Amino acid sequence: MRYPDGFKFELLHTDGAARLGRLTTPHGIVDTPFFMPVGTQGVVKTLTGDDLEAMGAQIFLINTYHLYLRPGVDVIERMGRIHKFAAWPKALLSDSGGYQVFSHHGKTKITDDGVRFQSHIDGSYHDFTPEKVIEIQRRLGPDIIMSFDECVPYPATRDDALQGVEQTTRWAARGVETFERLDGDGRFPSQLLHGIVQGSVYDDLRRKSAEDLLAMDFPGYSIGGLSVGEPKEEMGRMLDVTLPLLPTDRQRYLMGVGYPEDILMAVEKGIDMFDCVLPTRNARTGLVFTSFGQYNFRNATAADDDRPLDPDCSCPVCRRYSRGYIRHLYGVNEITAHRMATYHSVHFFIKLMEGIRRAIADNRFAAFKRDFLARYSVSRPESLD
Amino acid sequence: MRYPDGFKFELLHTDGAARLGRLTTPHGIVDTPFFMPVGTQGVVKTLTGDDLEAMGAQIFLINTYHLYLRPGVDVIERMGRIHKFAAWPKALLSDSGGYQVFSHHGKTKITDDGVRFQSHIDGSYHDFTPEKVIEIQRRLGPDIIMSFDECVPYPATRDDALQGVEQTTRWAARGVETFERLDGDGRFPSQLLHGIVQGSVYDDLRRKSAEDLLAMDFPGYSIGGLSVGEPKEEMGRMLDVTLPLLPTDRQRYLMGVGYPEDILMAVEKGIDMFDCVLPTRNARTGLVFTSFGQYNFRNATAADDDRPLDPDCSCPVCRRYSRGYIRHLYGVNEITAHRMATYHSVHFFIKLMEGIRRAIADNRFAAFKRDFLARYSVSRPESLD
Repeated sequence: MRYPDGFKFELLHTDGAARLGRLTTPHGIVDTPFFMPVGTQGVVKTLTGDDLEAMGAQIFLINTYHLYLRPGVDVIERMGRIHKFAAWPKALLSDSGGYQVFSHHGKTKITDDGVRFQSHIDGSYHDFTPEKVIEIQRRLGPDIIMSFDECVPYPATRDDALQGVEQTTRWAARGVETFERLDGDGRFPSQLLHGIVQGSVYDDLRRKSAEDLLAMDFPGYSIGGLSVGEPKEEMGRMLDVTLPLLPTDRQRYLMGVGYPEDILMAVEKGIDMFDCVLPTRNARTGLVFTSFGQYNFRNATAADDDRPLDPDCSCPVCRRYSRGYIRHLYGVNEITAHRMATYHSVHFFIKLMEGIRRAIADNRFAAFKRDFLARYSVSRPESLD
Repeated sequence: MRYPDGFKFELLHTDGAARLGRLTTPHGIVDTPFFMPVGTQGVVKTLTGDDLEAMGAQIFLINTYHLYLRPGVDVIERMGRIHKFAAWPKALLSDSGGYQVFSHHGKTKITDDGVRFQSHIDGSYHDFTPEKVIEIQRRLGPDIIMSFDECVPYPATRDDALQGVEQTTRWAARGVETFERLDGDGRFPSQLLHGIVQGSVYDDLRRKSAEDLLAMDFPGYSIGGLSVGEPKEEMGRMLDVTLPLLPTDRQRYLMGVGYPEDILMAVEKGIDMFDCVLPTRNARTGLVFTSFGQYNFRNATAADDDRPLDPDCSCPVCRRYSRGYIRHLYGVNEITAHRMATYHSVHFFIKLMEGIRRAIADNRFAAFKRDFLARYSVSRPESLD
């Protein structure tokens, strides 16, 4: 592929295999490694763009499948594409929707041509093909977009995983063709298309998938089909197999990961980009992330606990409110509790990545990881006294 | 009653009967006339204290009934009372819970002694007496607290309304006695207790209620039992009957009101304080307040309407987001929509009161009211083109 205008990935420094970099997009710079909060419907749940900017977010993730269904591509295109629609001037990345289509509860029919699926909203039938998914993402207009891939469930037989890799390769090639054809007609903003490495937990299939995609010279690579239920060791092994094959001058994105400990492990192996629903989804149930580990307001907090949620955190929630008060807001089902927990947890991930970047710059990533995990895994905030 | 330490009400200027004033409390100054957002459970729905401060709120309202049930008075007292618990350093006012107890769906038994009611949460039985309601409010610790009153439903016979007035008077006297007894033991912060004028829509009963309370020399007066279904003309008439009896050097609070047009009418007659659930409750269903009238996201907005919600508004929502985007967020049930609508509507009421205060200061309240209503009532944002 031709490298897209307005983009640049610079590898600034390495500390072991951990990489400090800078991804320039038409909507600003994103420092790597970074974590993307998930804004499936074009919004990071309970937050606004002002909030995300205040906490230092440089990018968030949107979902092609959801925005295609509601409000629809026509609406977003008429509103001047996704940055204008969502009033977010910084970078955006879209997931291709493949994961949603395949993990879908309704009837899904996969053919070589693509996927026929039912809307989770009204049961209506829709077809996604590799071509259509690229066209939708070009019309939506995020900066970084994903090829349409087949994500096989875990566990998968070797045959199924192989078939998934071959399908992913064919679909990636068809996507590239559509991407470049649409690039030619001048209607669309410059965008950067990632290929997605599949292969379940089979070393040779991961290698084959990576090599297939490398032949198309993508300006960036994703690693998909992990964090889908496999043991953590398998995830690490797949990264060990895949990452050495990828070019060092292109950013690498581990999709759907993850927990802070997974992010640290993957950064150490050379991953640059992450996304995960954990900080936004778990807030609904009272589960938050702190420097001392995961913390659950629904069962961990005393009613009169007047300490901040995370004494090490500088976010507006921890600066102002007590655990007892936030627990009360959960107890009486006030939305503000959901917002406070989301704000804190997303802020936690953003600041974790800032800490990781500073540590790599100072050649002390290993110590940073060790210290973080020692506090994160061992003690728990409820035992803080 | 003895006038409480740390409080002062200053009437700074009048424009006709409209009053510009300043209420000093131990938790800061509140400029009058003011509107209190409702924070029933100790939080203004979807918002934080940072939000309220940013939009210029100097006070909000909490509810005795709800906080008594959850998290309970003991918890809030142990946490250092309500200002500390809710991390709100400015003024707070508590409703006595009478309205909640009387308008309750469960079994409620009223005796001369007080009210036995069932919790709306678990059906458990509780007794509120005038003494207990004062004691709860002293322990919770808001700056301004309310007598326990009997709010008769509308319509009420003259006999029922008279009985409600007599009960309210007796209960007010018992509350004052408790208030002053507790004042003596030094355990509680200085608080300002309001008497509440009742009397349904009967001129003579309103006069009787006011005169009964005036004999107790309350440091502030509320007018209750209005905005409960009576015609708007009746509300205005009751204010005309009641307000001339109240001392000019004490603030007057019209409870549970209301719509912008009602607030303007009542300010013109000399009311200083308002509260209403409208901006917070209606946001849930997509209904917001704008300078052009009420506006409903669920049916009024085109999917690709790229105009701000209220072109005359300076709030962060109107500065950044389009109607089309907020409509989308409502359509996909994102909490951020609820938050944006609440933020805008509460901001709208706060700024309306700021405009009212400037207009009184400049002796142009009548023109302000006329101009506001001309825009507010006639045009609608959906017809703005």
